[in-house]
Amino acid sequence: MILYDLVNRHHTHFSPNSWRVRMALAHKGLSHEVRDVRFGDIPGLASGEDKLTIPTIEHAGRKITDSWAIVQYLDQAFPDTPRLIAAGAEGHVLHFFQYWVQTTVHSGISHLILLDVHNSLHPSDHAYFRSSREKMNRKTLEEVQAGREERVEAFRKSLQPLRMALAQGPFVCGEQPGYADYLAFGGFQWARLSSSFPLLAQDDVLHAWFMRCLDLYDGLGRKEAAAS
Amino acid sequence: MILYDLVNRHHTHFSPNSWRVRMALAHKGLSHEVRDVRFGDIPGLASGEDKLTIPTIEHAGRKITDSWAIVQYLDQAFPDTPRLIAAGAEGHVLHFFQYWVQTTVHSGISHLILLDVHNSLHPSDHAYFRSSREKMNRKTLEEVQAGREERVEAFRKSLQPLRMALAQGPFVCGEQPGYADYLAFGGFQWARLSSSFPLLAQDDVLHAWFMRCLDLYDGLGRKEAAAS
Repeated sequence: MILYDLVNRHHTHFSPNSWRVRMALAHKGLSHEVRDVRFGDIPGLASGEDKLTIPTIEHAGRKITDSWAIVQYLDQAFPDTPRLIAAGAEGHVLHFFQYWVQTTVHSGISHLILLDVHNSLHPSDHAYFRSSREKMNRKTLEEVQAGREERVEAFRKSLQPLRMALAQGPFVCGEQPGYADYLAFGGFQWARLSSSFPLLAQDDVLHAWFMRCLDLYDGLGRKEAAAS
Repeated sequence: MILYDLVNRHHTHFSPNSWRVRMALAHKGLSHEVRDVRFGDIPGLASGEDKLTIPTIEHAGRKITDSWAIVQYLDQAFPDTPRLIAAGAEGHVLHFFQYWVQTTVHSGISHLILLDVHNSLHPSDHAYFRSSREKMNRKTLEEVQAGREERVEAFRKSLQPLRMALAQGPFVCGEQPGYADYLAFGGFQWARLSSSFPLLAQDDVLHAWFMRCLDLYDGLGRKEAAAS
């Protein structure tokens, strides 16, 4: 199994959606090798008509792209490993959780550190990243990130349902981590690897939860150095 | 089985948390009778030390309070009926969904219609409701509701993850409604029964979903008249 994953100028694997898959592979105990790519390499990964994004895995001669589709594939291809996405209603509620992560965690983080993310990339990716992200945001990267010291409190407040969930146990999924933990972890790991801006207060239960997630699987998440 | 439920001056059962239980009882096909109470009657429901809130059910000589505890009880006491809260990780993710409903849907709605809710109550509940809600919000009810025409767009935007989930199927839980649907439905039903303020745009997929929820179980939700 091959995981195609993005690296920045510090050779760090920073992609939030890849961290979902990395944690899912570790949860299932599936070994794999990693092929490093930059944004500029992504179009070259596709062999046919289908567009690929990161993360993409290659397994049994097939490439599968999109983190949700990859984890569903892993659940099916390795039925003896712990299932991460349930069938039926429960899988749909988990998918809602992913949408919440996308619209609240990722979007909130990007408005606080997007220029830092840009600056951490390999210079050959700068032009693509600036142009595509400025188009999405209809602002310069500098404008997106401006005033973050005043805005970080609103971001922290938006995480309140996650904080309430963590009052029930050490992980979002209860006593043991599950895919909802990995979905949320991806966003905070992306920030940790791309920016030194303090997203979470030290005394926040979310900070303690994030540290617990970094400890999982022999400190898998800590093996990548935090941005300085 | 008895369900103790709040009524307003129009004899409408408006409590969002009770609607979770009403829909759960219908989903399970469990018959019950309803005892109407006003806010002022709640302290008198408790017989021992424990404080009761609405909804409370009485079954087999026992009173169970809190919507989550009630639905868990129904799952256990009636194992032949469809289960609504899964054990393990999936139940925890569903609990997160309830926290999201509480912090985003209920809180957002209350900031748009709290004075209308007050005005729809029986006059004997006015003093208690005003005093307790003004203390919670640190504002008068009039101040809480002021400027809602300008604020409703931000509320609609905050519902984006729910809208994304509904792009996958007719219900949050997929092809068939489940407890996540009833959790979200409760908030919108509370608004429908307490205020004529238009919360959702007519062309919003959430509006179509809410209509589908009102149709469920022979139009159970529609049997209570919308506020005018």
